[in-house]
Amino acid sequence: MKRPDSHFRPISGSVLPRFAGPSTFMRLPMVEDPEEVDIALVGLPWDGGTTNRAGARHGPREIRNQSSMMRLVHQASRIAPYDLCRVADLGDVPVNPIDLSDTLERATAFFQRICAAGATPLTAGGDHLGSLPALRAVAAERPVGLVQFDSHSDTNDSYFGEANRFTHGTPFRRGIEEGLLDPKRMIQIGIRGSLYSGSDLDYALEQGVRVIEIEEYFDLGTEAVIAEIHRVIGTGPVYATFDIDVLDPVYAPGTGTPEVGGMSTVEAQRLLRGLRGLDLVGADVMEVSPPFDSGYLTALTGATMLFELLCVTAGAVADRRAR
Amino acid sequence: MKRPDSHFRPISGSVLPRFAGPSTFMRLPMVEDPEEVDIALVGLPWDGGTTNRAGARHGPREIRNQSSMMRLVHQASRIAPYDLCRVADLGDVPVNPIDLSDTLERATAFFQRICAAGATPLTAGGDHLGSLPALRAVAAERPVGLVQFDSHSDTNDSYFGEANRFTHGTPFRRGIEEGLLDPKRMIQIGIRGSLYSGSDLDYALEQGVRVIEIEEYFDLGTEAVIAEIHRVIGTGPVYATFDIDVLDPVYAPGTGTPEVGGMSTVEAQRLLRGLRGLDLVGADVMEVSPPFDSGYLTALTGATMLFELLCVTAGAVADRRAR
Amino acid sequence: MKRPDSHFRPISGSVLPRFAGPSTFMRLPMVEDPEEVDIALVGLPWDGGTTNRAGARHGPREIRNQSSMMRLVHQASRIAPYDLCRVADLGDVPVNPIDLSDTLERATAFFQRICAAGATPLTAGGDHLGSLPALRAVAAERPVGLVQFDSHSDTNDSYFGEANRFTHGTPFRRGIEEGLLDPKRMIQIGIRGSLYSGSDLDYALEQGVRVIEIEEYFDLGTEAVIAEIHRVIGTGPVYATFDIDVLDPVYAPGTGTPEVGGMSTVEAQRLLRGLRGLDLVGADVMEVSPPFDSGYLTALTGATMLFELLCVTAGAVADRRAR
Amino acid sequence: MKRPDSHFRPISGSVLPRFAGPSTFMRLPMVEDPEEVDIALVGLPWDGGTTNRAGARHGPREIRNQSSMMRLVHQASRIAPYDLCRVADLGDVPVNPIDLSDTLERATAFFQRICAAGATPLTAGGDHLGSLPALRAVAAERPVGLVQFDSHSDTNDSYFGEANRFTHGTPFRRGIEEGLLDPKRMIQIGIRGSLYSGSDLDYALEQGVRVIEIEEYFDLGTEAVIAEIHRVIGTGPVYATFDIDVLDPVYAPGTGTPEVGGMSTVEAQRLLRGLRGLDLVGADVMEVSPPFDSGYLTALTGATMLFELLCVTAGAVADRRAR
Amino acid sequence: MKRPDSHFRPISGSVLPRFAGPSTFMRLPMVEDPEEVDIALVGLPWDGGTTNRAGARHGPREIRNQSSMMRLVHQASRIAPYDLCRVADLGDVPVNPIDLSDTLERATAFFQRICAAGATPLTAGGDHLGSLPALRAVAAERPVGLVQFDSHSDTNDSYFGEANRFTHGTPFRRGIEEGLLDPKRMIQIGIRGSLYSGSDLDYALEQGVRVIEIEEYFDLGTEAVIAEIHRVIGTGPVYATFDIDVLDPVYAPGTGTPEVGGMSTVEAQRLLRGLRGLDLVGADVMEVSPPFDSGYLTALTGATMLFELLCVTAGAVADRRAR
Amino acid sequence: MKRPDSHFRPISGSVLPRFAGPSTFMRLPMVEDPEEVDIALVGLPWDGGTTNRAGARHGPREIRNQSSMMRLVHQASRIAPYDLCRVADLGDVPVNPIDLSDTLERATAFFQRICAAGATPLTAGGDHLGSLPALRAVAAERPVGLVQFDSHSDTNDSYFGEANRFTHGTPFRRGIEEGLLDPKRMIQIGIRGSLYSGSDLDYALEQGVRVIEIEEYFDLGTEAVIAEIHRVIGTGPVYATFDIDVLDPVYAPGTGTPEVGGMSTVEAQRLLRGLRGLDLVGADVMEVSPPFDSGYLTALTGATMLFELLCVTAGAVADRRAR
Repeated sequence: MKRPDSHFRPISGSVLPRFAGPSTFMRLPMVEDPEEVDIALVGLPWDGGTTNRAGARHGPREIRNQSSMMRLVHQASRIAPYDLCRVADLGDVPVNPIDLSDTLERATAFFQRICAAGATPLTAGGDHLGSLPALRAVAAERPVGLVQFDSHSDTNDSYFGEANRFTHGTPFRRGIEEGLLDPKRMIQIGIRGSLYSGSDLDYALEQGVRVIEIEEYFDLGTEAVIAEIHRVIGTGPVYATFDIDVLDPVYAPGTGTPEVGGMSTVEAQRLLRGLRGLDLVGADVMEVSPPFDSGYLTALTGATMLFELLCVTAGAVADRRAR
Repeated sequence: MKRPDSHFRPISGSVLPRFAGPSTFMRLPMVEDPEEVDIALVGLPWDGGTTNRAGARHGPREIRNQSSMMRLVHQASRIAPYDLCRVADLGDVPVNPIDLSDTLERATAFFQRICAAGATPLTAGGDHLGSLPALRAVAAERPVGLVQFDSHSDTNDSYFGEANRFTHGTPFRRGIEEGLLDPKRMIQIGIRGSLYSGSDLDYALEQGVRVIEIEEYFDLGTEAVIAEIHRVIGTGPVYATFDIDVLDPVYAPGTGTPEVGGMSTVEAQRLLRGLRGLDLVGADVMEVSPPFDSGYLTALTGATMLFELLCVTAGAVADRRAR
Repeated sequence: MKRPDSHFRPISGSVLPRFAGPSTFMRLPMVEDPEEVDIALVGLPWDGGTTNRAGARHGPREIRNQSSMMRLVHQASRIAPYDLCRVADLGDVPVNPIDLSDTLERATAFFQRICAAGATPLTAGGDHLGSLPALRAVAAERPVGLVQFDSHSDTNDSYFGEANRFTHGTPFRRGIEEGLLDPKRMIQIGIRGSLYSGSDLDYALEQGVRVIEIEEYFDLGTEAVIAEIHRVIGTGPVYATFDIDVLDPVYAPGTGTPEVGGMSTVEAQRLLRGLRGLDLVGADVMEVSPPFDSGYLTALTGATMLFELLCVTAGAVADRRAR
Repeated sequence: MKRPDSHFRPISGSVLPRFAGPSTFMRLPMVEDPEEVDIALVGLPWDGGTTNRAGARHGPREIRNQSSMMRLVHQASRIAPYDLCRVADLGDVPVNPIDLSDTLERATAFFQRICAAGATPLTAGGDHLGSLPALRAVAAERPVGLVQFDSHSDTNDSYFGEANRFTHGTPFRRGIEEGLLDPKRMIQIGIRGSLYSGSDLDYALEQGVRVIEIEEYFDLGTEAVIAEIHRVIGTGPVYATFDIDVLDPVYAPGTGTPEVGGMSTVEAQRLLRGLRGLDLVGADVMEVSPPFDSGYLTALTGATMLFELLCVTAGAVADRRAR
Repeated sequence: MKRPDSHFRPISGSVLPRFAGPSTFMRLPMVEDPEEVDIALVGLPWDGGTTNRAGARHGPREIRNQSSMMRLVHQASRIAPYDLCRVADLGDVPVNPIDLSDTLERATAFFQRICAAGATPLTAGGDHLGSLPALRAVAAERPVGLVQFDSHSDTNDSYFGEANRFTHGTPFRRGIEEGLLDPKRMIQIGIRGSLYSGSDLDYALEQGVRVIEIEEYFDLGTEAVIAEIHRVIGTGPVYATFDIDVLDPVYAPGTGTPEVGGMSTVEAQRLLRGLRGLDLVGADVMEVSPPFDSGYLTALTGATMLFELLCVTAGAVADRRAR
Repeated sequence: MKRPDSHFRPISGSVLPRFAGPSTFMRLPMVEDPEEVDIALVGLPWDGGTTNRAGARHGPREIRNQSSMMRLVHQASRIAPYDLCRVADLGDVPVNPIDLSDTLERATAFFQRICAAGATPLTAGGDHLGSLPALRAVAAERPVGLVQFDSHSDTNDSYFGEANRFTHGTPFRRGIEEGLLDPKRMIQIGIRGSLYSGSDLDYALEQGVRVIEIEEYFDLGTEAVIAEIHRVIGTGPVYATFDIDVLDPVYAPGTGTPEVGGMSTVEAQRLLRGLRGLDLVGADVMEVSPPFDSGYLTALTGATMLFELLCVTAGAVADRRAR
């Protein structure tokens, strides 16, 4: 039974108030079969890779709640994602709160099912290690590029000795090592915060990752950085990951490792809008941690950034379809 | 297509953690057709009858979130409601946030559809005026009794002059006037708070309502009050309404009209368990107002009381089926 | 009995600490008769037109509390409003929390009494529908211009079908229809947030309203926008309305419909200071909703913006007197 | 000009909603001349005697806000205080936030003016040192008895060496030394919390103060303790002081020195109602500290206890008048 | 170098205010060598066994902060623990936030070092799995008894299938299996909350554990339950574990799995005081989770219960010394 | 016994998680003897000079907690302070919470002891009056310059009449009068907020202080203001004081006198980094008031600014050593 396209649209706030009704991403229908959609919005309620303050496991639920404020059309770009694609809430990635390895396996399988169905995953996390299983699915056949908005490079090697190689500080090193990411097509924007040592960024730089520390971002300006993103990524497939801590803590207090002195939401929105034209094969908004939030602000910001990513991803999907 | 009984059970916390997955009442499935269920859990996200602090419109969403902590079997009574009945989340009652009359009409129709299907409604509000449309449905054919846990009698006549006869302070006077409630089979427990005048309770008393002010409750004790409930209500059909403000504000800070000096949750739980044996035809938990809550406590309490009511209502449903 | 001008000055913080004493706007005296003042500070504790999160009914009380931080002289412009005008707190506009029509009537009458006395109203809300009764008073004799700082155009037609034409999303369409506003002398600044459809702004634009979406604001810059305000408004009478949600939610979390990506308070202050020279006949700060605030920040911001408006309005009053 | 008795009544919530209008104690009028009233409600916004967590300076403002929930008639006793007495808000006691001695002088003079006018002071604090200037006024002519609800005896001698003899831990030792209090007619109820040494209570006991530690209170029960209060105090003049920290911290988190394991508000209300019949010449509710409060609960509790004290004080005033 | 006993005493609040100075348990000195002390206060900042809401990793830090309110002598029992024993803060148990097995090893070794030195460990957690490594140390030579205050039995077998046998729901089953606990000398008090199935408690009951569900506790009363504790435990060595969630959530909102309807702090204090006379060889206060707390209340409660346990443990140490 | 330099380094987050272990500044060791260090980090837990909202007494404890997020190397400047200097936490300045004069004496003596040992003090406050005792120590031999980041000039003369000359609004006037500060080498940046009168800044300007109001700061830009700082201060010894309220309240809600419209943390960080090259002889971060904070943001910001100051101060110490 094929449901009509009209099924895949948010409930209107003039039919059911925004505080009412089921709490799904963007007030979209919840569906189980990824074959039905072009873009699969999923939650990844897990923070088992977190070394400091946990809580991102609660991110998806609150991002869903706050996403009820998102309407149908992007105000600045006038992109209407639900006119371009079938989008739905595919529910939460299966996780095991006390078992890191088990969770990585379950999550990888879930993302693989989405990709196998031809859908593009758009994830709300969850700690940043959650990007790794998504990458394992979207990059199963060839390495992809990465646009990473983050205050941390997340390319550490291990933690607490050699044994712990999977934490929210290591996903992109693992991604490079596993051949999921092409470091030459990786760009990290907004890196900041005091360092463990002067060599923290050496691995990334040696691999050829383009690292734009926050000062360089402020000095270059948003438009120049967008150009640099396009230069580094080019036309190949690319994954976008938005760690909410790239924002200054005033915009995103609800996160595990806040770093004072980040970018504003206005700047982040402009950057995300600048991803239009890239061949996005997946994206995520990570590290929203409601227990540390103030007044749902971070969750609202996460939902807004998810909508920004949805619009540019819908554009990419439409572009691929048109090719 | 008839779904198996096994469909109507909460998702296990050992399959999907309690912070994950869709946020429905008790982690039950969401269904649209009341014909499928014996007990219909519904939200009533509306506070348009509120004369002081609004916010109960947000109650159902947060009660759903917190109800994820409810497991399968009642610890004290060992009632297993999902073994007795088919229970599901029927979604939210349709409301109009700025139009009181329109909302009463929409809500009445919604509850009538549930009752027409033979299902028993169990509502999470919303302000206390929301009990009125539920009563219009469950008492359509004959007046019912009422067990009311509340710090306020809610039998005022009007507000701000004659024009405003429907507020959260008037539902049970309207219910009596509309012939929905049999005042001789009404009992109010926990009444307290400073009075507008010494005659505030005269209407209820004159109609024959049994009013147990909080001091009398403390003096009689829980067991005696349970006996009194059964004496007043007898064997006929009865609706139970639990205004969260019957609790002391420490247990329920998130409500619109808190009154210091109320009962504890332990006392309330014992009272609700004491409803077993009554012929419950509907029930509700009202006035949970998340914007005034601290740490989701009131919503958790509301969810717990809803589970208490679910268990005794499931017993009543099973009793009716057995008759 | 005519009270001396010295009566109409804030209590000094060196006589009574700022956390002590009666809580009035700017620590000014409370007076009943608008004949005594040039500028009437009033509260409008009402949010009955709110379609999403209520709470602005509590705005005036908390803005009064926070306005105790406002001293006597504007730091940047050195305007000393109490040297220019008699200003006092005229109390709250009478409202009916559960009756929209009744409230609009009561409020209109209250504002008419102020205007009839020759006083200029400066209002702290309350939801944005509250601007309509003020406009009915100040524009009783001829349409006025409007400078609107807002993330939403508030020129929708109706809500939940045809019946509901008065909500906080419709006041300025009603104002145009009622002949209170001259759309050619209207300017809206800061519009943003996802849209219901691509045609949301069509009505305003067709009427000739100058709409500056937030991106255009950022691109033009504050000085150019101030110039544009003066160009659009010209020398005629004008009302200024500041919806607190024009600010980014970090500056104003306590509001009903926050939209990520707004302007800063620094930008807003510069814009408001730029209103000096306009013939202001009334102004308001709306949509401050304390239940959703964090640490009184939004109320403090609202009080600060009210002081900014007071200074430019005092200038306008002095200008009119000088003419 | 003598104002009619009807002037000295709270604004009705059916005329002006409880969240609207001026924020005064009990929504009573604010008057300046104590000659006009029988009972003077005053705020004492000062915490300069606080050795641990400050913040009680903000108590009066928030107690005023929350007292808007108090109606006209006591629910349990049916005392109607405004039928018995003229009551008004006399504003705040003048204080100097950084000068303890200056504040004690200013406050003493203020209370003396109230007593000289024949009015009975009812104070909302402020830290507990604030009871001392009130005692200096009400006990100017002869020592009075004291009913003290408190988790601390507040009869320490000095702090940080000999120099600091006036802190919120010393007022009742100073009161005894200054001849304001008759220790044989003093009773302290609810004392608890870990001790500095085993001799903390020796001074009070040696003076003849009746000390009921919290365990004795629980063991005796409320009724027996009320009887003990009447036995100790007898028929002479007495001052009642209610330190909000006598309550368990769940009922009063907003205080400077919370002690786990206190009494409930239900118990406190019964105790305060038990003061009817005593010749109350003044009373206070102290140590409400809004910066440490959760959801205004402590302020609401403080306002409720102030209303309880108002009712029994009004009874005492009426009794004195009748003699 | 042997330090004098006077070294092992809290800093006085009359020398350094309670909000100042290093934040250690009870303001005691921090020492590294357990040989120096009789009782070792330790933190266990870890919540890796948590299946629902994490956050107890932050418990020790905040309990230390709040323990600055604890003075020297117990008010009810007049026990002066620092006169009986040398007590100090031994710092935090080493943990690995992302590796459960590694943490159990590190923690076990740490506790073994304490016990080897002859010191008695008193732990502030951390999730309840943290009791297991402590038991492995204190029960290394023979099984011990257990007094468990808890709303959950924590004797589940596994989680998410067979693989996960170590969670905060399993420590006492593991303890029995590992021969650390003598189930015949185990008593659980306060069990409640909805059940997974009617057989949740079967394992414990079959092993001979005495389970007192909350209703039985309320029915028996505190004194009878204390007697029952002594009957079950007898004179042998015993460990006491206090899961903060045994308290009603109003007293302990900051915990991972709150269950409405628990005991009060007054009741818990009486129960803990009733442990005097038992041969306590270790104790803990677990599951304090600051991210979910309101105003530090749960941490203050945790600190208070830790002080209660310290006093009865100091008594036991003195008793052992005297034998 | 001389401890090795390696002793004076933060505990690594890969050895002990950041939420674990003793809470000291930057996770540094706590030492008692200032002879051991080059830079002494100290807390000044006192707010007795505060005229509005108290609470800064709690600043040091929470800044210590949040400083656990600071790693070893400055990200932008790559300064590694612990490679340049021996740094430790010297504990809290002794204070008397209820005695202003006593506190000034105790604090002055404490700072003198640090300076006598040749260490440079770096203070976390505490209200701004606390800068005065530090200045008395560092400027004992000759006046120093001052770089002041602040929204208030803090050069008032007195408060509440002549008697009160020491408040948090007067330290720098007293500093000039006492010959501690050379007004010609003083620069104040960020001054704003409504004024008591148009002459508020006259004293500072007449003394020759360079005052950069916030508008001038925004107009000049950060780089030009850094140049101006260096021009005014020159090569002599200088003290830097950072009042957290120079930041916009969104970045620092937890402060006593917030003023809307301030600078961002990004701007402040750039300014502080611009102090490199000055001969810093002491510095502080003041007015962090946790009771008014949201989610520890202000404390985190304070800790970050303290780390910024630590880096430039370490540079200055190294420069002095190299001379």
